[in-house]
Order: sequence, then structure tokens, then C-alpha cells
Amino acid sequence: MSMTATKPLPRPEPHQLAGAIEALAARFGNRLITSQAVRDQHAHTTTWLVPQPPDAVVMAEATADIQDVVRICAAHRVPVIAFGTGTSLEGQVNAPAGGVCIDLRDMNRILAVHADDLDCVIEPGVTRKALNEHLRDQGVFFPIDPGADASLGGMASTRASGTNAVRYGTMRENVLALKVVRGDGEIITTGTRAKKSSAGYDLTHLFVGAEGTLGIISELTIKLRGIPETIAAAACSFTTLEGACRATILAIQTGIPVARIELLNEAQVQASNAYSKLTLPETPLLLLEFHGTADEVAAQSRLFAELAAECGGGGFEWTTRPEERTRLWQARHDAYWSVKSLRPGAGIVATDVCVPISRLADCVVETEADLKRLGLVSPIVGHVGDGNFHCSMLADVNDVDEMARGEEFMHRLVERAQAMGGTCTGEHGIGQGKQKYLVGELGPAALDAMRAVKQALDPLNIFNPGKILPPQ
Amino acid sequence: MSMTATKPLPRPEPHQLAGAIEALAARFGNRLITSQAVRDQHAHTTTWLVPQPPDAVVMAEATADIQDVVRICAAHRVPVIAFGTGTSLEGQVNAPAGGVCIDLRDMNRILAVHADDLDCVIEPGVTRKALNEHLRDQGVFFPIDPGADASLGGMASTRASGTNAVRYGTMRENVLALKVVRGDGEIITTGTRAKKSSAGYDLTHLFVGAEGTLGIISELTIKLRGIPETIAAAACSFTTLEGACRATILAIQTGIPVARIELLNEAQVQASNAYSKLTLPETPLLLLEFHGTADEVAAQSRLFAELAAECGGGGFEWTTRPEERTRLWQARHDAYWSVKSLRPGAGIVATDVCVPISRLADCVVETEADLKRLGLVSPIVGHVGDGNFHCSMLADVNDVDEMARGEEFMHRLVERAQAMGGTCTGEHGIGQGKQKYLVGELGPAALDAMRAVKQALDPLNIFNPGKILPPQ
Repeated sequence: MSMTATKPLPRPEPHQLAGAIEALAARFGNRLITSQAVRDQHAHTTTWLVPQPPDAVVMAEATADIQDVVRICAAHRVPVIAFGTGTSLEGQVNAPAGGVCIDLRDMNRILAVHADDLDCVIEPGVTRKALNEHLRDQGVFFPIDPGADASLGGMASTRASGTNAVRYGTMRENVLALKVVRGDGEIITTGTRAKKSSAGYDLTHLFVGAEGTLGIISELTIKLRGIPETIAAAACSFTTLEGACRATILAIQTGIPVARIELLNEAQVQASNAYSKLTLPETPLLLLEFHGTADEVAAQSRLFAELAAECGGGGFEWTTRPEERTRLWQARHDAYWSVKSLRPGAGIVATDVCVPISRLADCVVETEADLKRLGLVSPIVGHVGDGNFHCSMLADVNDVDEMARGEEFMHRLVERAQAMGGTCTGEHGIGQGKQKYLVGELGPAALDAMRAVKQALDPLNIFNPGKILPPQ
Repeated sequence: MSMTATKPLPRPEPHQLAGAIEALAARFGNRLITSQAVRDQHAHTTTWLVPQPPDAVVMAEATADIQDVVRICAAHRVPVIAFGTGTSLEGQVNAPAGGVCIDLRDMNRILAVHADDLDCVIEPGVTRKALNEHLRDQGVFFPIDPGADASLGGMASTRASGTNAVRYGTMRENVLALKVVRGDGEIITTGTRAKKSSAGYDLTHLFVGAEGTLGIISELTIKLRGIPETIAAAACSFTTLEGACRATILAIQTGIPVARIELLNEAQVQASNAYSKLTLPETPLLLLEFHGTADEVAAQSRLFAELAAECGGGGFEWTTRPEERTRLWQARHDAYWSVKSLRPGAGIVATDVCVPISRLADCVVETEADLKRLGLVSPIVGHVGDGNFHCSMLADVNDVDEMARGEEFMHRLVERAQAMGGTCTGEHGIGQGKQKYLVGELGPAALDAMRAVKQALDPLNIFNPGKILPPQ
């Protein structure tokens, strides 16, 4: 790992790029932007990856805009990179071969809400907070919450999930259908509003998680849920990390429909206490949320308290009062800032892995030991009901030695997760950062299949080149 | 529609077929079978499609067998058709171009059960009943129930679902990872045991529902659930079909986690009363199942009864006693036989469509009117929580006029569902029977994408040719 790890790719010939930009300028006027500042804003900068700005940015306002950008770029063999809010974490919006970024923030219309069917149809630039604001009066909500106020197009493209995936699934489970602009500008419709279908290959899932490498999502049909009558929050400290994981396994196996179940390791609780002025016991902590009727929520909390007590969980407290819920979740929501405050000025390298839940305790304990051995600071939070956890490693990017130890740590973390039957990324995606781990996880035949699909659907290699698939 | 609707495809040259069979005989001895009786058993005969037997059947016992069959067939350009239990409904196991059927029934080992992780690893020939028998002692079960005791490999390949998909999802939501034998005999691993992943293209979902046209599934990792503490069954008659659908919508929107919610229309209740000697009111009926703790199940039933009463539902009764549950579900389980008994000797043409739930009442009412107009008999049962319903049309395949009216009915049913934002098949798949409807549902660009994927992953077109994709 270093700030120069991601190699630039061969760029289009200057005449190709000039031709594309000329055509885009004629079509889009001042919605085509080539200023350095705007280009820089569209290069990925949220982690340790080097920003690689596009050559130009087009502010798209309608599907026809996407179609025309793609057609022009295809004609000139210039890359096209879709951009939502730029909150991806593995370099998904970087432009290693240059090219044109399509900024979709203005494609933020909610085209239809079907509350009876629990679905809605939206443009890709709609963010999850704006969507839920819009939906609130109709008694429905969209459940996926990756933390950032990301765009739904981006969330679909990275197969995002977050804290309440344990109950409601990830973007994989919550996209019903897409419209996708393909390389010649035509639109692929991947499904209908029917809740289930056996009609042909599952193109919807092929584009969900493809990180914009197979086409540009221009419309999404996504599932909604009824807003629960009652929401309760709970916190429970454990004497051991194994105990916290065991309680989680029992809860899932018993079928308690927890809406959120988040682990904070000892280091994270310490950081949170310091930053958020809390007095939580500095031992592994589970934060939970229950959704349902008042009776269901009470029963779920009671049942979980019993299971937790069997696993060394103590001080279980739960509440349905909104201000109390906020207090309990404070530590989780401020986790990033609490880590940042441990060492002002240092960068945070965020990463995630996901393992079968039975191996979670082992994986976290070994990871903690590794951090200690390498002299690194990286509190851990986890979407523990899914076996998914995050390390937020503090690092000075100018400290060569620390970065080398960080690199070793990251490698070992991924290999540990994979050796336990897990994946190198539960929700951040592959992007640029994790390409080297894909073959170790799935083997060369899976990579061949992915390359064949990429070649089949994007023969010109114009869609977000340099992402997901490692160089051959 | 007629018994000769499915045109044969060009077959391999005789020397190619002879070469393949010679090589297979050398490798498999008496596990290669070419008798007419066995070939006929492996041709699809459960609906109106013409049986098209393969040229030979190989009884596979291990992954290496599948690999060798595929390698030999690829070398001789001979089709390969995977066969589980032969219970698919749209001609998925027919051999319109001839070729070699791989019978996977003996690949029925359960390779690993991870009760803590709620997953298991199995061979493709394991059937759902055998699996649940094996799992019972460990407190877990596999929830997908398409009716038939199908093999899990076949269920994955057709993206099967059934009565409790409303709560537990379909095969789409319940396959974690696959191993798939590709055209050169190498094995593609599509995922890990991690509950979620953002690692590259979603190959798992690409093979789920591909009907064996992209490779042969040799291993599945599937999700399990904890066996619920309490199971309750309920029945509720409605004065109108709209009322039954409205009660279902309210239940789903309120978040009542019904495990099953099945609609029987008036014609089906009449047939069931006659066949099963029941005295149900001959009006639309909902049959329900609730899973949870005793308290949860009681609360769910109570809440549903309130909603149903608002929608004209009466005579709601529920029970947790197994023999009572069986009695209540009798009408549903015997639906096929009850229809069959209406006209002994006639065939049953089974079909399914799926619409957004808000359109279900309209769709069923219009379908009933159409049947009446055309003088056809076809009781309707529906997985109403998903907007999915089945028509079981009685037809004499030798009656040209009746078959013509049946054909018109089927066309209109599919077009009606598609016009309402639905799909031509919720769970039976495309196979041979529904190819002509795919372009109307998704448009030519989606078909192009599917053809490109097929070409990319099966360039020799040896995997189950003549399925899903309509001839160009």
C-alpha cells in the first residue's frame, strides 16, 4: 500500500479526447465542465488511493443526456465514469485512463411511488435521505443505510449495504429492476415491477455491483418497506468478544428479526467514550435496534436479553424513546470521527471484510492481535449479524514504515477472511483497491467468466475501465 | 399452442454424436444409457410441450463425471442437458437438438451443514425433502417449497420459489454460492460462504435461473433458517376477490411476516370441496401460515384477522395443532388433483404469471372473465403475497378447437400481466414454452445482452441449447 499504488492506464489518443470534448461541448454547452477544480472534485479521495481526475465532467439532467455522452464517448473510444456522490471507498470513481465523468446528481427525480406494491421508481442521483424524506408521509421507507448519504445509483453499483442489512438485505436484495444505458446508447431494461420473476438471465443482479463497468444505470426500481410502528434501541456490553458474537449467532438462529446489530470492539468503545463523552464499559459492545409493533419489539428485546445473559452480556438496556435511541446510537454514528480524533492529522484507511458468522470472533480477535503486533491503531466496528466488519486504520501516508506495516496488515486481514470462507469485501466493492484479492477468493475460472461478461457487454472497454478486473 | 409447437433444432452430425457416445461409453461403462425407455424418462412431459428425448443419459456420481461429460461433449460439439428430478414445467429438460443428458440424482450428498452460519453445502441432486429430513435434528431447515420434491440444482437453475417465498424469498435470495462446470470442464466458483459480498460481478445470480444454459451446477451453498418454535395455519373466506387481495396488501404493508399466504379462487374452492370432501364457503379463500414464537404467531394471527375483517373476510380460524394445520392446507396441497378430477382424462396445462400486488385482483378478475368467455376451465391458485398466480387449464390435447382457445387464453394472460407491469413467469421459467414473451417483457436490448452473455460463457452453444433465448 502506498499513495502511488494505482497505476494509470493507457489514455485515449489526444485527438480522440479532443474530438469527444468538442462534441460534448456542442451538445451540452456549460454543462460540460473541464476546470481543474471540478475535475478534482470528481476524483476519488476518501481513502488512500491516489485521486485520478477525469478529463471532463458532464452534468446530466435526463436519460437522453447519458445516452448522448455514452454515444459520443463510444464514437471516440473515450472512457465514461458514472458519478453519484463520490462516497465510494475503493476508488470506484477514479479515472485511471482519463475520460468523461457523468455527474448524475441532477437526475434526482422520484418518478413513481407505489406504496401498495412497496416499490418506487427513481433516477440514479436520488440520495437515500432525500428518498426517505419524500416517502415518509406515505408510511414507507427504503431500508438500506450505508452511512453516507449516497445516491441510489451508486449504492446499486457498489452493491452497498450497511447497518440494517441484517434484516432488510443489501442492494442485492432490494433492486427489482434497472434501466441501463449500454455502449451504443440504447437502453437495457433488466426486469419488471413484479416481486419475483424467472424470465431469463438475471440482468438486474449483473448490473448491481458492477461498479459502472458494464453500462450506466439511468433508472432504478427498488423495494420499500412499511415504516415500523415501533423502533427500539438497545445496548449490551460483553465480557468477551466471543460472547458478543455468540449472542449474535443465537439471536439470528432463533430468528429474532433484529433490524440492526452492531459490534464495537474495546478500542472503538474507548475511542467513542473519549470523543462522545460517554461512560460505556470499555469492553466489547453490541448496539441493537428492533422494529415492529410495540409488543413485538418488547418481546424481541426480552428474548435477546435472555440470550445475551447466557453469553456474558450485561447491563442490557433498551428504549423506544427517540432521544434515548439517539443517545445509544451516538457511539456508532460518531465512530469515524472518534477514530479520527485519536490522532489529529492522520489519515484513515477504511477497509471491510465479511466472514461466515461462526468465524467472526476468531477473525476479529486475530485481527486485533495483528494490529498490536504491527503497532497499528485501528478500531473495529462490525455489522456483526452479517459477519461483516470494518477496520478504520489510522495512518500517516508520509510515513513509509507505517504504510508498509499497514499494507501488511491489510493483506493479512483479507487473507484471513478468505481462509475462513469469507470475502475480501462485504460492502465496499473491489474498485481499484481490492483487485489483487479477487483471484485468491474465487479462482481464475471466475475471473475468466467476469472478463468474458465484460467483453460481451462492453466490447470497447469504455465503461469505467480499470475497475474490478485486475490487469492481465 | 399445440403438441407440436416446439420445433426441433439442428442436431449434431451423426459422426459427432457417435464419437461422443463412444467416448462416454469408454469412460462411464453402464452408467451411459441409450435405451429408448430411459431416454424417454428424461424428456420433459409434465405439460403440453412435446417430449424431446436426449440421445443418451449419463448417471453422474461426482463432479469429475460432470467435467468429463462436458469435455467429451464439447470436443464433439454435442449438447449437454442437466437433469435433476424432471419436474420443471416449461420444457427445461427437453433435448430439441438431441445430445447427452446428465442425470444428477446420484449426486445427492450433503457435504457440510453449518448450523451456526445458517448455510449448507450440497450436491445438485439433493432434493428439498431429503435435505430437510437431514437437517431436522439440527434445528434448521431450507425454506423454499415449490410443491414438487425437486432437486436443489434444478430449483436453482429455474429460480424456483413457491408457497413460502413471501417470507423467505425465492432461490434468487437463498443461494449463496455455486460451483459450475464450464465448457472446457473447468470449475467456476461464484462466491463464498460470507452472507454478503461486493467482490466483483454477481456470477451466482447469473447462473441461478439460467436453466443450465451457461454451465452445469456441480455444488451449491444455500441459506438455511432456524425451525420456528411455533407454526400456525389459518383460513379466511372473502366475499370478493378484491377483498382477499386487499387484505394481503395490508398484511404485507403492515409488515406481518406471513410465511405463506395463498389465494384459491371460487372455481378452485369448488374443485377442492368436491375432491377433498370439504365444506368451505365457495368464495375466494386465503390460506395462511404464521411462523414464530407462540406469542408472535398469536399476535400475527390476531392482527391479520383484524385486517381481513376490514376487507370482507369472514370465518377466520387459526390453529397451531399439526392435524388441524394439515386439514386447513388440504385444499391447497390437493389443488392439482382436484382440478384433474373435474375432467378425468383431460390434460392440465399449468402456467404462471406475476404482477405487482396492487394489480393482482384486476389481473385475476380479468383472467376469470376471459376463461368464461372462451369456455375454458382453469381454477386459479396464487402465491398472492408475491402477486404470483397459477392457472391450471384443463384441455384435451386432441381437441383442436379447445387447444386454439387455450392458446389464445395463454397469450392474453401473459400480455395482461406484462401490461400491468408484471412478468410472463414468476417461478416456472422460460424454457421452451415462454421464449416468445421475453422480448415483449424486457425489450430487444435485454435480449441482446442475454445473447451476448450466452455467447461469452458458452461459445460452442453446447449447454441446453434451445432454452430461454428465442431463435433469431
